[in-house]
Amino acid sequence: MDFSESVLARRSIRRYRQQPVGADVLRQLIEFARVAPSGRNAQSLRFCVISRPELVKSVFDLTAWAGYVTPRRSPVWGKDAPPCFIAVTTRQDVRSTVVHADAGAAIENILLGAASLGLGTCWIGAFDKEKVRRLLPVAEGVEVLYLVAVGYPAETPVLEDAPGEDRIRYYLDEEDRLHVPKLTADDLTTWA
Amino acid sequence: MDFSESVLARRSIRRYRQQPVGADVLRQLIEFARVAPSGRNAQSLRFCVISRPELVKSVFDLTAWAGYVTPRRSPVWGKDAPPCFIAVTTRQDVRSTVVHADAGAAIENILLGAASLGLGTCWIGAFDKEKVRRLLPVAEGVEVLYLVAVGYPAETPVLEDAPGEDRIRYYLDEEDRLHVPKLTADDLTTWA
Repeated sequence: MDFSESVLARRSIRRYRQQPVGADVLRQLIEFARVAPSGRNAQSLRFCVISRPELVKSVFDLTAWAGYVTPRRSPVWGKDAPPCFIAVTTRQDVRSTVVHADAGAAIENILLGAASLGLGTCWIGAFDKEKVRRLLPVAEGVEVLYLVAVGYPAETPVLEDAPGEDRIRYYLDEEDRLHVPKLTADDLTTWA
Repeated sequence: MDFSESVLARRSIRRYRQQPVGADVLRQLIEFARVAPSGRNAQSLRFCVISRPELVKSVFDLTAWAGYVTPRRSPVWGKDAPPCFIAVTTRQDVRSTVVHADAGAAIENILLGAASLGLGTCWIGAFDKEKVRRLLPVAEGVEVLYLVAVGYPAETPVLEDAPGEDRIRYYLDEEDRLHVPKLTADDLTTWA
């Protein structure tokens, strides 16, 4: 898939087909992440690929989804929950803002790469970080920054131009389709 | 360009051809950025495209480049400096880590989109943020988070596997070519 197609194909997915994702595909997503830019090339991020169903379920139970349209876009285990997660971690002593910027870039590579392979993803920041950390085989002093849900999509959200800065909440239409309003380039840009 | 080609084509570029970048191309980069994921879809980032040569020069003078190989990879104005910058800004009252993660994702869209169009970029975090802010036509209370240098590349850095976690510094070889060691997927990943 062409880069610009991948960018437009990527939308946060909150309904998944109940179908596993192959280890080779998950590994390819990490390959995309590892070549992302990193401040001073320090490469402070690590990844934990979570695909054992019982562990996925335990992590899933600690996540929160789609604040604006809860509970209608909260996936249900056994019905439309994601079949795996990638946890993005770092050492607790790493300087905060730069590692979040690095995480954003690496995660965007995962999200776009997944879209280019026909997968859906959802970048999740709302979860119990300490409880998730304790579930994972990570060392003391490691912090879980973000989770990325990965699976085959069972919904097709719509990107649309936001009518204004006060009208940016995503919403569900009568047919239960999610609409995601994005401010236009004109709204966002100053030329100098 | 295919997504996976774009990901591999993207390397930080610190030598640029002295050739302007069209406004239509710069606008396309903002189009890529605007559809990036954003925590709660809050869209707190704004972009200032800097292309007037005298302003580019003033901003350029406030940037620092490539700490590990200074001064050999510091571009020189009039020789190989970038012809434009995109400043990524936000309001100072926006919560810090999430907006840096959002910035990482939006900037990665710019970097990958630029690579797919044959452009080179460098994501810059080391610059005098307050002085740059005062040069730009932005409101009080706006913070400049990052700069992205944009132009046509005049170098071809090499991506390579890092031999270990203590061997990740980028370096110049005898032919003045920049090598960027990246840890492998095996180094970075735990499976659970």
